[in-house]
Amino acid sequence: MLRYTNHFETKTLDPFTLEKGYEAVRYEASSGDVGYYHLPLSSIALVEELQNLYRDIDRRFNTIAIIGIGGSSLGIKAIERLLRPSTPNAKKLIYLENSDPITIMHEMKQIDKFRTLFVVISKSGGTVETLSIFKRLIVSFELPLQDSEQIYVVSDDASPLAQFADENHLRRFVIPSNVGGRFSVLSAVGMVPLTLAGFDTFMILKGAQAFLERFWNREEEHMLQKAAFYVTHSEQYPMNVLFAYSDTFEEFGKWVVQIWGESLGKRNRVGSRVGLTPISLIGSVDQHSFLQLIMEGPLNKTVTFMHIESSEEHLMIPELSLSHLEKSDFVNGKSFNDLINAQCRATIQSVLQSGVCVDEIAWKQIDEASVGELILYYELLTSLSGALLEINTYDQPGVEVGKQILQGYFQKG
Amino acid sequence: MLRYTNHFETKTLDPFTLEKGYEAVRYEASSGDVGYYHLPLSSIALVEELQNLYRDIDRRFNTIAIIGIGGSSLGIKAIERLLRPSTPNAKKLIYLENSDPITIMHEMKQIDKFRTLFVVISKSGGTVETLSIFKRLIVSFELPLQDSEQIYVVSDDASPLAQFADENHLRRFVIPSNVGGRFSVLSAVGMVPLTLAGFDTFMILKGAQAFLERFWNREEEHMLQKAAFYVTHSEQYPMNVLFAYSDTFEEFGKWVVQIWGESLGKRNRVGSRVGLTPISLIGSVDQHSFLQLIMEGPLNKTVTFMHIESSEEHLMIPELSLSHLEKSDFVNGKSFNDLINAQCRATIQSVLQSGVCVDEIAWKQIDEASVGELILYYELLTSLSGALLEINTYDQPGVEVGKQILQGYFQKG
Repeated sequence: MLRYTNHFETKTLDPFTLEKGYEAVRYEASSGDVGYYHLPLSSIALVEELQNLYRDIDRRFNTIAIIGIGGSSLGIKAIERLLRPSTPNAKKLIYLENSDPITIMHEMKQIDKFRTLFVVISKSGGTVETLSIFKRLIVSFELPLQDSEQIYVVSDDASPLAQFADENHLRRFVIPSNVGGRFSVLSAVGMVPLTLAGFDTFMILKGAQAFLERFWNREEEHMLQKAAFYVTHSEQYPMNVLFAYSDTFEEFGKWVVQIWGESLGKRNRVGSRVGLTPISLIGSVDQHSFLQLIMEGPLNKTVTFMHIESSEEHLMIPELSLSHLEKSDFVNGKSFNDLINAQCRATIQSVLQSGVCVDEIAWKQIDEASVGELILYYELLTSLSGALLEINTYDQPGVEVGKQILQGYFQKG
Repeated sequence: MLRYTNHFETKTLDPFTLEKGYEAVRYEASSGDVGYYHLPLSSIALVEELQNLYRDIDRRFNTIAIIGIGGSSLGIKAIERLLRPSTPNAKKLIYLENSDPITIMHEMKQIDKFRTLFVVISKSGGTVETLSIFKRLIVSFELPLQDSEQIYVVSDDASPLAQFADENHLRRFVIPSNVGGRFSVLSAVGMVPLTLAGFDTFMILKGAQAFLERFWNREEEHMLQKAAFYVTHSEQYPMNVLFAYSDTFEEFGKWVVQIWGESLGKRNRVGSRVGLTPISLIGSVDQHSFLQLIMEGPLNKTVTFMHIESSEEHLMIPELSLSHLEKSDFVNGKSFNDLINAQCRATIQSVLQSGVCVDEIAWKQIDEASVGELILYYELLTSLSGALLEINTYDQPGVEVGKQILQGYFQKG
């Protein structure tokens, strides 16, 4: 379980706003319109199915290549990066996402055709990057399609990719139609590659479900307060920084940027442009990069600090004093984990002093249940904020225009 | 040479403001107060010295470990990532920067003690992360210090680290005292590891110097216009997005975030908090993540699109039509480079339509001279903007408080 502390003032928050947020997500969950609330429970059967499949997979493959972009890759990468240090023997995961030829070539060189399971992931089944890379792989590795046991598909049940899979008798997993791409990591999107790679996805679901239940039971009121604060102060603080003190949060930060930015950057009911801008930072690195701007730049950001109290890695700073460099000896004999934690605490204290709006998420240690909890935390926080902004949190109409222009270019030429 | 296009309105810009910016940086350069303007010329002798050293290095070492953080690592990483695809035989570079124990352990495992040159980089010579990691390496790899030919130091001439190096007769390179850390990549900071790794740093300097001369000759007025526009519209557009269409710009984006955020987030002469917030995105990936917020969220961002017209990698999307997936066939027979470029153009067009303030930087191809040019472009743009904001662009007083608090924690305990 994580520990949440809001350092900002919550006394002035309107109780009606808090109730409105709670009731809105409660309604979304019970109406069935928004499906992600049910994934922590409904994906358990899927994980059991995948665990049965694992033995066969494990014998044949040592690598899983994920062909997907955006909501079809960010969440998987985030979880892999967080759990890899404690699950070093999980299969290698390769991500093929961007249409950048240099990256695609580089990733393709890592692939041993006979020992790799290809998992094609697209909610709509029409993502141009994903399908183009899939075609490239089929041709480059001469992959047979019909009845292939080496290609899995994860998609909406009604998508053209699902039809393609069925026609070729490929193993296929369903993203429920009421689960949007950026809210899909606890569906087959994340569960298929992560379970088959050997990560303990069951515990991820458990952690998510436990948090969800506590939220429904009104035991996580800090979250309602945070969403209400962010929305009612969105003009004053248009940016929300997540400052995580561990390199292993780098991909998680990108996942947060997507779910927060794409869900909340919208035209509201009356056509006004609303939204909150997410920024992801890593400590202590970004103390040497972005912190000055937080400390003395305009007071237009909230900052969420995240840190891990204990670490698997007890690497020590030696009791070594070097001539002329004695000023740094104050950390001698401490662990690097002590240092990074103290850096986080010192930064929180100095940022608070400069009048910035701060909250804090503390981990005892990184484990599967906490990762599941954090995913659900950010999903719920997004839903609550979207409800209070009175927008449709789950669509992305703004990105369709570009897709049409793109198609126009190629069809003309 | 890069091609710059400002799509925003420049007619209303005050000519006096443009002159004020130009004169301010001209004065900085001629007074000698700010040293980075002179690096493209003054570093040439250094690069020649390093090239002479290269033969000996090349025989003994296959890896260079860089111990440095912030301005002492971001620029090196940025250049390596951009040029690695066209310089695949350059030596391996390992970065030891964050105080995260998991990362330090991981990177240390990559080090072959006998084949690695250790380069310790710190302008102040007192960076706690850098010195702690250095101590860890000394102990773990039993590195002899006295007269070691395996340890190089890059630092300010007057720093304690420089004194340590001299006492131990280590090879030492100087960061000029008038060159700040985040403006130092064209000094010994970048030149030492990159030249010794085998990158063509001479051409990087050439490209930087050529752009600088064109700027002094008033042949790059778009840059003055951009800085003036950003500063005079900083309340309307507090955020500046760099949206680069190639994965190889990921580290460059982090370098931009540092130079822009840390230089411009300041208290001005009268104590008011000013600043512009940098955001780094990668296309097409972030079309699936952040673009919705740009398209329909608040009009509080400028966006700079960057793209590469031709690529070394001519990877094709096959002429392959898959049943049910014919809708994606419109890119069949095109290269992935065509696709990513068309995605960029389509996104520029749709973002412009939605009323966002846009400019564009186009590369013919990624080469050393263009990389040098882009570095100097962002350094100058930052200096111009800082001058117009009437702040000290080159200090970072806001991050000192946290360092004192940190020291207090350990000295108490």
